[in-house]
Amino acid sequence: MIDNLHIKALSDIVGYENIYTDKAHLIAYSYDATRARFEPDCVIFPRDEKDVSDILHYCNKNALIIIPRGAGSGFTGGSLSIKGGIILAFEKHMNKILEIDMDNMVAVVQPGVINMDLQKSVEAKGLFYPPDPASEEHSTIGGNVSENAGGMRAAKYGITKDYVMALRAVLPSGEIIRAGKRTIKDVAGYNIAGILIASEGTLAVITEITVKLITKPKFTKTAFGVFPSVQHAMNAVYKTFANGITPVAMEFLDNLSIKAVEERFKKGLPTDAGAILITDVDAAAQNVLDEQMEKISEVFGLNGCSEFKIAKDEHEAKDLWFARRNCSQSITIYGSKKLNEDVTVPRSKLPELLDEIYEISKKYNLLIPCFGHTGDGNVHTNVMVDGSNEEQLKLGHKAIEEVFEAAIKLGGTLSGEHGIGISKAPFMRLAFTDAEMNLFRSIKKAFDPNNILNPYKMGLD
Amino acid sequence: MIDNLHIKALSDIVGYENIYTDKAHLIAYSYDATRARFEPDCVIFPRDEKDVSDILHYCNKNALIIIPRGAGSGFTGGSLSIKGGIILAFEKHMNKILEIDMDNMVAVVQPGVINMDLQKSVEAKGLFYPPDPASEEHSTIGGNVSENAGGMRAAKYGITKDYVMALRAVLPSGEIIRAGKRTIKDVAGYNIAGILIASEGTLAVITEITVKLITKPKFTKTAFGVFPSVQHAMNAVYKTFANGITPVAMEFLDNLSIKAVEERFKKGLPTDAGAILITDVDAAAQNVLDEQMEKISEVFGLNGCSEFKIAKDEHEAKDLWFARRNCSQSITIYGSKKLNEDVTVPRSKLPELLDEIYEISKKYNLLIPCFGHTGDGNVHTNVMVDGSNEEQLKLGHKAIEEVFEAAIKLGGTLSGEHGIGISKAPFMRLAFTDAEMNLFRSIKKAFDPNNILNPYKMGLD
Repeated sequence: MIDNLHIKALSDIVGYENIYTDKAHLIAYSYDATRARFEPDCVIFPRDEKDVSDILHYCNKNALIIIPRGAGSGFTGGSLSIKGGIILAFEKHMNKILEIDMDNMVAVVQPGVINMDLQKSVEAKGLFYPPDPASEEHSTIGGNVSENAGGMRAAKYGITKDYVMALRAVLPSGEIIRAGKRTIKDVAGYNIAGILIASEGTLAVITEITVKLITKPKFTKTAFGVFPSVQHAMNAVYKTFANGITPVAMEFLDNLSIKAVEERFKKGLPTDAGAILITDVDAAAQNVLDEQMEKISEVFGLNGCSEFKIAKDEHEAKDLWFARRNCSQSITIYGSKKLNEDVTVPRSKLPELLDEIYEISKKYNLLIPCFGHTGDGNVHTNVMVDGSNEEQLKLGHKAIEEVFEAAIKLGGTLSGEHGIGISKAPFMRLAFTDAEMNLFRSIKKAFDPNNILNPYKMGLD
Repeated sequence: MIDNLHIKALSDIVGYENIYTDKAHLIAYSYDATRARFEPDCVIFPRDEKDVSDILHYCNKNALIIIPRGAGSGFTGGSLSIKGGIILAFEKHMNKILEIDMDNMVAVVQPGVINMDLQKSVEAKGLFYPPDPASEEHSTIGGNVSENAGGMRAAKYGITKDYVMALRAVLPSGEIIRAGKRTIKDVAGYNIAGILIASEGTLAVITEITVKLITKPKFTKTAFGVFPSVQHAMNAVYKTFANGITPVAMEFLDNLSIKAVEERFKKGLPTDAGAILITDVDAAAQNVLDEQMEKISEVFGLNGCSEFKIAKDEHEAKDLWFARRNCSQSITIYGSKKLNEDVTVPRSKLPELLDEIYEISKKYNLLIPCFGHTGDGNVHTNVMVDGSNEEQLKLGHKAIEEVFEAAIKLGGTLSGEHGIGISKAPFMRLAFTDAEMNLFRSIKKAFDPNNILNPYKMGLD
């Protein structure tokens, strides 16, 4: 528990103006996108890495809990102070793009930089930072690294881990470490950057991030295909990739998702379709783009696609993307609460996964609209329930557990991009053996022997 | 020390036919590419993962040292049994390509599979596994993963870690773990695969590797540029990339390296040139390829390139590559022993790095021919000495230390692709702080509390 003496000691480090203890702020920092709420004891805004080091050193000595927090846009409670503690927030001071190094095509940023700000800054210089989680307009690079955020462009460009070249971080002891280099090749020492990515703030506090930038392909095109069934669409997805075409994104909506968007927005969507696919391709030249589109059209056709549209311009492209962009909010017509998961399977297992999900839907008599990033095997599975109906909520959670079981059975994962946090912690036992969980705990202990850093997360405690 | 009782117990696991204890075999397994020799106590060939598990379980209980070994082609002694122990070798049984999954574009292999065999097998099916260390014809995927092997194509395609999607491994306790999935996205649990890569066999024994495959670009071209000085060439390298061109490879030879190849092979190389660059580009279409070549020619021209040749066909391409392929063996004309290192810096620091290396060469009055993978900042630095001259050897090692210091000062690394092993262990203190070294030790302990797995490596002991 943080008492006044601790607050005094911490304010000696960062100044009183950088510690919030008033009720309004504690509430403001009590939630994330799960909508669960847990008030922290205080919120601290370190001014620099030295502050972070001094704070951690003090907290480690005094066994005080520290929870690093990005924008609080996470879906699994990773940044919630579920048993109190100090929220470490970076948006006030440690929110700068420190360098865009054109010669080596890297950017160096502080953890509080917002993803979209980084994207825009590098694009203004003709470069490209591909990871684009749906939260890109508010989520921070620190949070993105801690959760290993994915996004729409993962099918072609990979996820956050594929762009992190180097990190600076502070260990719970207060010691500052560097990991990785501004080089493609670096094999000296253990890959500490590799293990800090996706560690959900449980191992160290990241204070600086060096990311790889690439050249943005000049030509892009969007297409849209209508399929008689989800099975047809899922086959089209994996066969496109297996045919040597790597679209930037290949997203899908199932029938329930299509109907929901249509009901809300009246866009003339094909409400009798089993599924639609929306795909973006890019290339360094127009002819390469055209070739890819032709091949996609061919593969889609061979898999039952009844209507194939290619956007003529940016306006039409936006239109084709409308359904996908608006389905998350639209499906709420099916229930006041959605139990939203992000299971991911090898692409070729998508047809089976969707089959299983609809079986589960029938079994529990609950609607499960699905949409998402099928290009990388990531399906957003939404079990819709009446939030005020305890019985239905319980059933919904049972259905979710069966969805996880199905994904794991098919060689997939509990989480493609949302992380474990508290929401998925109970399901870790489905995905990992005792040996694996114990290894996670040993690693946690190697970094954080006193368990002060974001404890009670990831099913480790 | 392994006594007969241990041999008996181990043979109960794998059978006597899979344990070698005879002198000839102990000698055969006593060396790697460093040419240092340390005889192991025995060599064991596990038949499967269960054998590996049983062997580790036994050795852990009895505090016996285990050293996993690929092809013994490493340059830093990573697979040497420097204080005896059991060599675990995979080339007899655990050497199969288990699956090439066309639908998901991955391959699943055992650790003993030879890199080139994997490359050829997937290329026969129209796919591509890019990592191509110089040892590709004999080094194994298990070894490649353990050392995070790089190669010629890293500038565009990255290194081994960029292709490993999932691993199976056995912990020193004998427990079997799985890490990663056959999916682009997977953020459940700590990134164990990430930390096993480049861990030099010190954390776990890898028993199965799932790698990502990509589509091979159809069009390739090779070019060759002659530069008045190394500085001109190094500027041309990083400016090519900064101009948005990403060649597959951009390799260089300095004047000493050019002269050495010419002296041995009389190929009509420009022996008065400061440096030559050899570059490969690839693309999905001919026009994209041509555009890239044009841009490279332009950037080379702006940086003093006096002669620019584009290969007309594969035969000419091979010819342009001849100097690079043969310089490692040719430079031995400068001394009976080469102290060969693989420092790597951010590309824009290459001009400074080479400046510093030639200063060091002057200072110690030792020739240091340089060549290598400049496209990814990786320079093979060869301090040439008379191996029978103790005094000169000592000077050579001092020169090497200064090369390391220069690379680190410029934001680079001790090792781009060779690893640390025993050769670079004394220099870890130049690159890492006490806090970082202690973190490595804590991680080692988390995996291997009894320190039975490849101990006395990476400067950890």
